[in-house]
Amino acid sequence: MKIFNINLIASVGLLFLMTTCQQHPGEAQKDKGSFTNFIVIFCDDLGYGDLTVFGHPTIKTPNLDKLAYEGQKWTNFYTAASVCTPSRAGLLTGRLPVRIGMCSNERRVLFPDSGGGLPESEITIAEALKRAGYKTAAIGKWHLGHLPQFLPKNQGFDHYFGIPYSNDMDRVVEDVGYFESCVNPKTEYFNEPLMNGNEVIERPANQHTITRRYTEESIRFIEENKDDPFFIYLAHSMPHVPLFRSQAFEGKSERGIYGDVIEEIDWSVGEIIKTLERTGLDKNTLVVFTSDNGPWLIFNEHGGSAGLLKDGKGSTFDGGMRVPTIFWWKGSIKPKVVTELGTTMDLFPTFCKLSGVEISNDRVYDGYDVSNVLLEGTQSERQEVLFYRGVELYAYRMNEYKAHFITKPAYFSDSAAYHTPPLLYNLSADPSEKVNVADKHPEVISKIVEAANAHKQTLKPVVNQLEIPLNE
Amino acid sequence: MKIFNINLIASVGLLFLMTTCQQHPGEAQKDKGSFTNFIVIFCDDLGYGDLTVFGHPTIKTPNLDKLAYEGQKWTNFYTAASVCTPSRAGLLTGRLPVRIGMCSNERRVLFPDSGGGLPESEITIAEALKRAGYKTAAIGKWHLGHLPQFLPKNQGFDHYFGIPYSNDMDRVVEDVGYFESCVNPKTEYFNEPLMNGNEVIERPANQHTITRRYTEESIRFIEENKDDPFFIYLAHSMPHVPLFRSQAFEGKSERGIYGDVIEEIDWSVGEIIKTLERTGLDKNTLVVFTSDNGPWLIFNEHGGSAGLLKDGKGSTFDGGMRVPTIFWWKGSIKPKVVTELGTTMDLFPTFCKLSGVEISNDRVYDGYDVSNVLLEGTQSERQEVLFYRGVELYAYRMNEYKAHFITKPAYFSDSAAYHTPPLLYNLSADPSEKVNVADKHPEVISKIVEAANAHKQTLKPVVNQLEIPLNE
Repeated sequence: MKIFNINLIASVGLLFLMTTCQQHPGEAQKDKGSFTNFIVIFCDDLGYGDLTVFGHPTIKTPNLDKLAYEGQKWTNFYTAASVCTPSRAGLLTGRLPVRIGMCSNERRVLFPDSGGGLPESEITIAEALKRAGYKTAAIGKWHLGHLPQFLPKNQGFDHYFGIPYSNDMDRVVEDVGYFESCVNPKTEYFNEPLMNGNEVIERPANQHTITRRYTEESIRFIEENKDDPFFIYLAHSMPHVPLFRSQAFEGKSERGIYGDVIEEIDWSVGEIIKTLERTGLDKNTLVVFTSDNGPWLIFNEHGGSAGLLKDGKGSTFDGGMRVPTIFWWKGSIKPKVVTELGTTMDLFPTFCKLSGVEISNDRVYDGYDVSNVLLEGTQSERQEVLFYRGVELYAYRMNEYKAHFITKPAYFSDSAAYHTPPLLYNLSADPSEKVNVADKHPEVISKIVEAANAHKQTLKPVVNQLEIPLNE
Repeated sequence: MKIFNINLIASVGLLFLMTTCQQHPGEAQKDKGSFTNFIVIFCDDLGYGDLTVFGHPTIKTPNLDKLAYEGQKWTNFYTAASVCTPSRAGLLTGRLPVRIGMCSNERRVLFPDSGGGLPESEITIAEALKRAGYKTAAIGKWHLGHLPQFLPKNQGFDHYFGIPYSNDMDRVVEDVGYFESCVNPKTEYFNEPLMNGNEVIERPANQHTITRRYTEESIRFIEENKDDPFFIYLAHSMPHVPLFRSQAFEGKSERGIYGDVIEEIDWSVGEIIKTLERTGLDKNTLVVFTSDNGPWLIFNEHGGSAGLLKDGKGSTFDGGMRVPTIFWWKGSIKPKVVTELGTTMDLFPTFCKLSGVEISNDRVYDGYDVSNVLLEGTQSERQEVLFYRGVELYAYRMNEYKAHFITKPAYFSDSAAYHTPPLLYNLSADPSEKVNVADKHPEVISKIVEAANAHKQTLKPVVNQLEIPLNE
């Protein structure tokens, strides 16, 4: 448990202080219409430029485009990390992965041979919302530890259905290389488990139908819980390589198999919205669509596009961590293109605010409640985004300016470059991070360095979960 | 006059054959509602990724976004060239610039010291539509020759108001370099003429108010001609450097001055649409919004973004010639994201079709009538796009595949690379032109080479207008 000295925290103006976790006065929550459901649709490796409404020329996403038009399209929305495990830990806890031991310089993510996972002492969105009577489901990829104590059922979720880690893990083919097995995949190359609760119900998981089955499972959960407040964390396994889609989507997209996969996810979104409409829940359900990190560029056509952003998954340039994000809530949200800063860690405090759950003051949170931006279109309190790679702070964005202290190629190189003074980009004017303006704005650099140092003071040593081997 | 052998043309299946120019049976055209007006809004150096609806994160274009949502957003729409003069010649004539002497390897565009221009023998959209009783206006940048015989009044336009060439020409400052004078411009650095008809009415033109004045002039023309069919060719001088915007837009955009300029153009679009609604013409006016070429990347924040496309203005990679394009026609157009191939040269035959004007069979046209795509959402006949640089065919796109025979940096280098076999990209799956698939598809290359050779057979020697000096 990481309890911070109040004075120290107060001196770091960027952090959120929250008070004891309490259940919202209970029964009123149960009246349909008086509560807000939450559905987070979280893609895996979907790039900033991969939806029509974010500029892709050939991937067709009419359902998502409609949500963006009716809701809010967030264009400066970030993940908590540029790879899977830490990104998911950040979303579900509202805290930077570095605070909870969920990132590492040695091992970027958890693997089937990992023995660690999201510490039970952490509070997930699901755990927080359960205190207000929410029914909770995790459907899809987990990747926060596959031992029982780390699985969703022990992290506040009533229900779990999905693959516990990335769909390229548990690779069992020996005479085909990793890259080849991912871009020309066969079902028998992989031995992924599909789980229901803590039980493996299918192995290898039939990945061809995985997006469809996640969707059906989500729809079933909505229908079964339509009279209660609910939270669904639908974390698609796709479009992470190896790419699979159901028969109905084979050859559908001009963009090839990657497009087929995204178009099936778009179909899935449409089915979920239809279910909300059919059950009369569309006006009291906040749907958030986003991605866990940028596109995996080393996979070429099997990876996505970051659009005009620089680099992709694994990088602390914006292509690695800025993701296409849509908030939709019929009748309540103020339709808008939102250029405010946001991160996946903001979902925790925002959902708590909207459900009346108060947040404990026993730890530091890195999220901001953005309900005012959603409902009133006013300004977010967030003024910074932190770009960690492993346990090191590589870059820091303050409003429009982003300083890179360290840069390193996303993959295939260990040669980090240390920048003194840091590289400085104005991301509002130069979203592609092309023109270093460090010389012109030393005062901005000073402010950012000061804020980054203050931030580092709030960190405490923690057990590194990603470095724990399975048999320890 | 370039008359082609009919058999030869018939053997080149990609070309359009059209019959004698005739006036549509006249007076019926004059009944409001029975005719279609045309407004082409043509930006200068606007990049593929510079509108919200095409994925820009901080430039806000709500009016254009709305048109795209209500109308058709074309995501595979190209210009006739990657620089100004030939691009405009292609749009207005429906013919490749190489057929009409409007491109050159020596001088990319026309300059104030040029003596050439669009030959009077060419038929512009304005000349064609006048035969069906249209009132015609060219408002904005011309750049197809500034001697009287080449100016809009002699090319089918009843009215002209604008600057006759690029807004960075007529540079009169001596002690400030070209680049510096463009990114930190002062009014006195330039001596651009503003013309009304063939008369210079202001010199130097006040560029701060130029977008606003082009807009007011367009609105006036709509109001004055609301009972007649009309064609307005509104060719903005912006966002070509040096960037200027009116006071109301100073500091408005998060994207900086470039964003201010685009947001003023978006405002302009909104004012024109409002005028159409006010005059009851919104249901019989086809509005087309597009750009003359890709973003001028060498100007960094003063240039735009090609989004996920490779390179920009001056290049035959897609960033140089694929442009953000919207067709809007309330009640008639089928709302859609269109991934069909299209080019600015298609406007000529499309407008002729929609206005009942038949097209002469005395020359080769390179445009396709796309009215069926607009009105019915069916497939375009276009299957190819040609990428010329000067008078050389650098690349050829056939459906999803694009072959590069020659590549060359857009600026600052004369080193062309000749590719045998050509580089081959699948633009549907790989819009960023990253993965050369020439090895995998020799049959595609054969087809493209054959089509390119057949195309070259249709070319005839012409006088190169761009190489004629002023005093000849």
